Amino acid sequence: MKRKCLANETCPVARGYDAIGDWWSLLIVLNILTHGSRRFSQLQEELGMAKNILTARLKKLVDEDILEKRPLAEGAYHEYAPTARGRDLWKVLITLRQWGEQYYCHGERPPNRLVDRETGQPIPPVEIRAADGRLLGPGDLAVIACQPAGTAETE
Amino acid sequence: MKRKCLANETCPVARGYDAIGDWWSLLIVLNILTHGSRRFSQLQEELGMAKNILTARLKKLVDEDILEKRPLAEGAYHEYAPTARGRDLWKVLITLRQWGEQYYCHGERPPNRLVDRETGQPIPPVEIRAADGRLLGPGDLAVIACQPAGTAETE
Repeated sequence: MKRKCLANETCPVARGYDAIGDWWSLLIVLNILTHGSRRFSQLQEELGMAKNILTARLKKLVDEDILEKRPLAEGAYHEYAPTARGRDLWKVLITLRQWGEQYYCHGERPPNRLVDRETGQPIPPVEIRAADGRLLGPGDLAVIACQPAGTAETE
Repeated sequence: MKRKCLANETCPVARGYDAIGDWWSLLIVLNILTHGSRRFSQLQEELGMAKNILTARLKKLVDEDILEKRPLAEGAYHEYAPTARGRDLWKVLITLRQWGEQYYCHGERPPNRLVDRETGQPIPPVEIRAADGRLLGPGDLAVIACQPAGTAETE
């Protein structure tokens, strides 16, 4: 039960973190998401990870139903592709990438860009909106405790 | 130069990843973002990290201008607060949290929720929109190589 490593183990965010496992695992998923699928050798080359570490990370991501290992037509090779659960990390990919572009480009041209496939235009900065459509900023968030089911909620 | 650990070191996403450093560092920043600021002892208790590891992670995050270490009025204590750069990771916090809630709650009530401070209502699922306002899905993204400045772009 990897979940034990996070203090608040009933928190869904903590569970999600534990399912991803570690930083390298997130990078593996984001690399695969960007390309649709990847072979082991491609991941190893692009991420520069040791084989045994990459093997262990991929196994955990498959066990957690974030990636699936699929046989390829040619030879005995496999590729790793995102499951629905893995694919739904795409919004994390975009927000992390936009953050990196904002703070680590310094006016340089990045080597590649994430674009809208239909128009080839960059994805505009992600907007966070309230249920009533108001644009939110980081100061507009609060964390509230939820009462157990069946009792009134505190707000 | 930590950047060496990622293959494509000119990619701003890779630079952003290297600045964050590792998974625990991201968890530290997200914990601080949720609460506005945190003392060392609180972080240690909530994340269950060894003191020397937490110390090293916090130092790197301060060096990278993602967190700042501020003296507290009472006694010799300090707290860690997000800088503008760290605060701008708030969209990553939201997308990772919504992913965790979607896949790891299984109908259970989470212990806490991230809400709109003004109304107390949950933040709706983040929408990714194209420059022309179209709602995008994960299949609508493409990665294109950028040419060096001064040359035409491939699209």
